Amino acid sequence: MMRRIKLTIAYDGTNYRGWQIQQPTAAHPEGSVPTIQGALQRALGQLLPKEGNTIPVVGASRTDSGVHALGNVACFDTESTIPTANFPKAINRYLPADIRVMQADEVSMDFHPRFVPHEKCYEYRIDNGRVANPLTRLYAYHYTYPLDLERMRAAARELVGVHDFTSFVNPDSQVFEHGGDAVREIYSMDILEEGTQLVIRIRGNGFLYHMIRIIVGTLLVIGNGRRAPEDIRTMLVAKDRTTAGPTVPAHGLCLCALNYDAVVTAEDARDDGDAETLAQDAENV
Amino acid sequence: MMRRIKLTIAYDGTNYRGWQIQQPTAAHPEGSVPTIQGALQRALGQLLPKEGNTIPVVGASRTDSGVHALGNVACFDTESTIPTANFPKAINRYLPADIRVMQADEVSMDFHPRFVPHEKCYEYRIDNGRVANPLTRLYAYHYTYPLDLERMRAAARELVGVHDFTSFVNPDSQVFEHGGDAVREIYSMDILEEGTQLVIRIRGNGFLYHMIRIIVGTLLVIGNGRRAPEDIRTMLVAKDRTTAGPTVPAHGLCLCALNYDAVVTAEDARDDGDAETLAQDAENV
Repeated sequence: MMRRIKLTIAYDGTNYRGWQIQQPTAAHPEGSVPTIQGALQRALGQLLPKEGNTIPVVGASRTDSGVHALGNVACFDTESTIPTANFPKAINRYLPADIRVMQADEVSMDFHPRFVPHEKCYEYRIDNGRVANPLTRLYAYHYTYPLDLERMRAAARELVGVHDFTSFVNPDSQVFEHGGDAVREIYSMDILEEGTQLVIRIRGNGFLYHMIRIIVGTLLVIGNGRRAPEDIRTMLVAKDRTTAGPTVPAHGLCLCALNYDAVVTAEDARDDGDAETLAQDAENV
Repeated sequence: MMRRIKLTIAYDGTNYRGWQIQQPTAAHPEGSVPTIQGALQRALGQLLPKEGNTIPVVGASRTDSGVHALGNVACFDTESTIPTANFPKAINRYLPADIRVMQADEVSMDFHPRFVPHEKCYEYRIDNGRVANPLTRLYAYHYTYPLDLERMRAAARELVGVHDFTSFVNPDSQVFEHGGDAVREIYSMDILEEGTQLVIRIRGNGFLYHMIRIIVGTLLVIGNGRRAPEDIRTMLVAKDRTTAGPTVPAHGLCLCALNYDAVVTAEDARDDGDAETLAQDAENV
């Protein structure tokens, strides 16, 4: 009997070109560059050889090259009789140590990790020490300039809520081509101190191409005093990428959790067309 | 004019065979395997070419292969006129990203990082999650069995204070050959929870070969219910390595700080002979 299995996946993105499989060929079915999706599909193929060399895996968030995850979600369908609870251990045997299946759950056959609305939680880590800490160099962006957290928190408050985030999207985003828009809801933004590290935690219903990295880059120029917290309002109204701050590097970003049980706000209760648009944005956060 | 410079050094020990330079040869002046000391001496030689190809560096703690550091200390002597505050940036230019000089201070010519008494603070990290977190896999020991923190804390309390730690020393330790003993003082042991991670923080005046890793291994079998907290007393009295728990892996261990300004207890006020013995123990914690 066919079952749909939902996997919760953690990975160190350092050695991967992002989630999404690239240019698959007959010789390199997982694509010519290492990707998380490619590694997972190959591992499943090794675990379940009767079902093919690689088994298609549908991911929730197509994280960008170098981005980490603690709780990305992906699904695959299988006729195997392996008990669901045994999948993490069984799949991990075929995965490199920098990718781990943390959990497996059986879901209904109509569950789709992108189209079913869910809350996304990301964290961006900044090493604000004078010298880069070598133990966090792969997981935090080293930014040496002084930061005023209260200015950053005031700016963050301006971003929380439902807004058109056009100014905070990489112009290469495909969302507009598909008739979509950049209106999203940010539920909360918290800026936490952990020693010399700063953690910016963002929860929302959908993030566009590079949106979080542009938001963080903007908070940094505000925290550093080169822009004012109130400038966020002007940026939002301008709908022009050049008004916001720079895009910070990928390696500070981590997809922490996707919560499918979260309370669905009015903004989330969209029709299928919008769900499709939301899904397309998931690419290259 | 000759100056002595004290460096505070952080490193990711993953790719190194410990602190201490090994088998230096003419062809490989930094030794045939990568070591922290070797990398530092070579970097200083590149920064200060007039003073030799490599410049001798005396370290405080000869950390073992795979052990990390946030605050190891090393000294070198130089006649250069580079301002002390500029050394971190200048030296880091010649170091790989997994080794960083965090701070430089000029000290008196009779300062010696090992012989001057100092408080040592180490942390051992345990990933107690069901599946190993790929983002901490290089910095925390994955231990899946359930742990009772109160039992571990009760055991830790038995270890705090002045004790003969012979049962918690690797028998290969050279401390006894030199007429030394295993009497040391542990000032404090804290067991902290950080998500699914456990941090065991130990402060003391000196640690013997593998002592912290054996203490942690013993706390784990106690936390897991296979030994009792009170067994620590029997182990201490036995002065027999076989009575204590296993040695946990190196990669969970981090030398966090060496504090030369710490209050010196009566136990620390030893004669030079004992200071020499303490210094020898520093090897391969």
